[in-house]
Amino acid sequence: MSDPAGTAGWEAGRVRIFDTTLRDGEQAPGAALTAEEKLEVARQLVRLRVDVIEAGFPAASPGDWDAVHRIARETRGPAVAALARCRDGDPQRAVEAIRVAERPHLHVFIATSDIHLVHKLHLDREQALAEAVRWVGYGRKALGPDAEVEFSAEDASRTDPEFLLRVYEAVVDAGASTVNIPDTVGYAIPDEFGRLVRAVVERVGSGAVVSVHCHNDLGLATANTLAAVQAGARQVEVTVNGLGERAGNASLEEVVMALRTRPGQFDERVTRVATEQITSASRLVSYLTGFVVQPNKAIVGGNAFAHESGIHQDGFLKNPLTYEIMTPQSVGLSGSTLSIGKLSGRRGLQGKLRELGHELEGPTLDAAYRAVVALADAKKDVTDADLLAIVEQQTAEAAPEATAGPVRLDGWSVTSSAGGRSTGSVSLMVQGEPCTAEATGNGPVDALFGAVDAAVAPALGWHPVLTEYEIRAVTAGEDAQGQALVRCRRSSDPPDADPATGHGLSTNIIESSLEGYLAALNKLVRGAPVEGRRP
Amino acid sequence: MSDPAGTAGWEAGRVRIFDTTLRDGEQAPGAALTAEEKLEVARQLVRLRVDVIEAGFPAASPGDWDAVHRIARETRGPAVAALARCRDGDPQRAVEAIRVAERPHLHVFIATSDIHLVHKLHLDREQALAEAVRWVGYGRKALGPDAEVEFSAEDASRTDPEFLLRVYEAVVDAGASTVNIPDTVGYAIPDEFGRLVRAVVERVGSGAVVSVHCHNDLGLATANTLAAVQAGARQVEVTVNGLGERAGNASLEEVVMALRTRPGQFDERVTRVATEQITSASRLVSYLTGFVVQPNKAIVGGNAFAHESGIHQDGFLKNPLTYEIMTPQSVGLSGSTLSIGKLSGRRGLQGKLRELGHELEGPTLDAAYRAVVALADAKKDVTDADLLAIVEQQTAEAAPEATAGPVRLDGWSVTSSAGGRSTGSVSLMVQGEPCTAEATGNGPVDALFGAVDAAVAPALGWHPVLTEYEIRAVTAGEDAQGQALVRCRRSSDPPDADPATGHGLSTNIIESSLEGYLAALNKLVRGAPVEGRRP
Repeated sequence: MSDPAGTAGWEAGRVRIFDTTLRDGEQAPGAALTAEEKLEVARQLVRLRVDVIEAGFPAASPGDWDAVHRIARETRGPAVAALARCRDGDPQRAVEAIRVAERPHLHVFIATSDIHLVHKLHLDREQALAEAVRWVGYGRKALGPDAEVEFSAEDASRTDPEFLLRVYEAVVDAGASTVNIPDTVGYAIPDEFGRLVRAVVERVGSGAVVSVHCHNDLGLATANTLAAVQAGARQVEVTVNGLGERAGNASLEEVVMALRTRPGQFDERVTRVATEQITSASRLVSYLTGFVVQPNKAIVGGNAFAHESGIHQDGFLKNPLTYEIMTPQSVGLSGSTLSIGKLSGRRGLQGKLRELGHELEGPTLDAAYRAVVALADAKKDVTDADLLAIVEQQTAEAAPEATAGPVRLDGWSVTSSAGGRSTGSVSLMVQGEPCTAEATGNGPVDALFGAVDAAVAPALGWHPVLTEYEIRAVTAGEDAQGQALVRCRRSSDPPDADPATGHGLSTNIIESSLEGYLAALNKLVRGAPVEGRRP
Repeated sequence: MSDPAGTAGWEAGRVRIFDTTLRDGEQAPGAALTAEEKLEVARQLVRLRVDVIEAGFPAASPGDWDAVHRIARETRGPAVAALARCRDGDPQRAVEAIRVAERPHLHVFIATSDIHLVHKLHLDREQALAEAVRWVGYGRKALGPDAEVEFSAEDASRTDPEFLLRVYEAVVDAGASTVNIPDTVGYAIPDEFGRLVRAVVERVGSGAVVSVHCHNDLGLATANTLAAVQAGARQVEVTVNGLGERAGNASLEEVVMALRTRPGQFDERVTRVATEQITSASRLVSYLTGFVVQPNKAIVGGNAFAHESGIHQDGFLKNPLTYEIMTPQSVGLSGSTLSIGKLSGRRGLQGKLRELGHELEGPTLDAAYRAVVALADAKKDVTDADLLAIVEQQTAEAAPEATAGPVRLDGWSVTSSAGGRSTGSVSLMVQGEPCTAEATGNGPVDALFGAVDAAVAPALGWHPVLTEYEIRAVTAGEDAQGQALVRCRRSSDPPDADPATGHGLSTNIIESSLEGYLAALNKLVRGAPVEGRRP
């Protein structure tokens, strides 16, 4: 199949954005998301107008399969991709999961470098090549002539170049419409990687879209991706915030904004991305995974558009162009601060949130409005950052698992003093029955979490076990809201079970911690999918 | 002066590492350091074996001058550089500050792009060229033939190339031994930047070291720096953690480890950096500035050497080379966890800390040992991360400003409960007099900080005003230590006064917050230099 629709239909002058936040990004240790959270990210990727959403690795677990299937069913606009090894069972499960998609995109891979073949797969080159051809052919047959079938040669940048070209040629003959060149270990240097990509484009570029997938181990993922575009690659695999295993993947926002800021360097190739959705996407992914974005991260860091030194401020005030190559507005940063008086009711809040990239209405808007009014009582200045934190909290926890869950917090108190242990007590409703308990701990949070454990254990037969706990200030200052991220599993689950995540938000960090613990607990009570780790 | 010693003496086959963490890095909004903290970073840069430490911008303020001067006086090994505008007064102050250094390195700059000349400096090209020549000549004369005199053309990547080359030629004739090409706005793309560097090397490379200074606005600072090395640059200006204004500077650790991991791509050029000090340097800079390093940061992120996905784990366990291009040990990560029983006393702790890159003895070792023993009572597993946090806390706060400061905490207690305000009380010794006070607040930290304010205000005539507050968990889990960073100024200072920084560490986050507040307060009482912002 030398002319699948995906290739022939590919628009000239464009670079296709293949987002793998939900697959490679979510594989980062500690970044696991629930199916509901993955859907929320997928909806934001639709607003961001990426071309392809890689939704997961369906063969990894029933939960992964289910999440990919739900995203495939619900997504309109971007293609939905699923990853599969070239191994009996994997591609079949992937095809089942994405067949319902408006635009299914199967992504099969096998390693081709000798180091991977010898030490991991115990295959020789010819066997690997045969498997690649077999499963690409399977995918083309299973999904028909119009679907995208992509093949990746894992560890391509450390593969013998002649063998690599032979593999790509063979899979294009077998029906692959996209061939992907992964720098799996983040080893490539831009000019060297550009030469490799150019060789692949020359060999198979007339029959397939050439794609790249770069890791950031040496800090070069964005540069390698851009060098590949200069060399003729027409699909780039990227993640929001550069999320991903180890040092992560090429960062969507960096690649997209470089193409947009320096078009002359890239033969005027453009993407379809709605760049003003970048900040919202970055915040959402950071919030749900608990992975902070450092202040000096390009494009989406808290300081990316901030100017300090006297030298720079001076020039900046005289003309922003002296130090600014992009506007904050182009990535969806309004930069304004807000006086709560100006909100003038729910309508005013709705308008302000629209400016910040969020469309709220009905009960969600009501709940957000109540939270903003309450915050204005506790805190002098309500800022954009505060509003965004409130919206995220509403979106993440306004789900069924929220305050109306099977475990409800009726009251709590805690005392803590120098040198001694802290003592906490909680009053809960557990499945309709009132329960109270006290506990002591190293600090107030430890004490209150212990009290919750003691209160729920008799009714549930298990208690939550904390696996991760973080607290972050939304803004500076002592009246800042604290955003808590809490992950726990059931005491009856295996230690490597996927945890449930809860978020809390309050100007009292004890309260936000407890809110987050209860949100996660309710997800566990309702039976959030709990699986062992991936194969 | 066409053959200054700095050039002729420059060793072939090497790339000079010019660290600007203390100058460009410290200019990042929110990253300001005290003179004492700058010295601590400078000592770590000596251990890291960088070639040049850019210590600051002496004309900015008397505090900046003093910090540069102290670093110049105390540093042995690396050269000590100071930045100066080409403007009467600046270079003189810089020369005064660094003249005492073992190897002084003057760094003068002026903008050369039309956009900067027109909108910021109101000079024409010929005037800018004349100022550049004048102040390079001044520096050469003031410091003598053996010192380094470096010239930077600010915004070089947006300067007319022919004019730029003419400027570099003129300053080399005037005595510059290094010419630096800054990509001030982070605008360059690697292959384009490499071509610019090559043109400069061809024009002046026989008479001066060619240097680059790249910003990260498009995520390309490391790649641009490496492309420059391929094109003949022999000095690179970098910062630890990529700290710096906006999206920061090229990251020292990424540039150094790329050169080390892929020598064949860089003509086998090497640096002198002791890479096993990288992790300690990264942690110290993050700790003192309060700038987090994101988990997916290359080389120094918490996940940089972590492997998750089943696919990857499998290969990794069979042979680390399948997914690892550098060892964690090469950057000073031991990766082990520790059973406290194995420490067997102060000697055991000392040995373990040496493995982690810290040499402690005498009272500092005693204090660290007491803290570790106390922690082992409160926390199940004492990890490497816990030990490093304790060492950082000892180093930062074992200074005179510490617990034995003019304000001492004798006791505190706080209560907090659902829906209500929190109430806190503190007992302090303020300059030898006992003071107690109570206050209420939104949360327990707010209440206790308010109580401290109320207790100290009558005696001091002012109270601390919080300008920044962050709390971070050292490890996961509910018994984790919380590391607090607190910055405050005096209520009697102007709102833009440089704040004092305090750190606290405890398994009780209330206690670590209060410790940090007291440490910062003591610095303010002792009169830490408080200045307005830079010119």
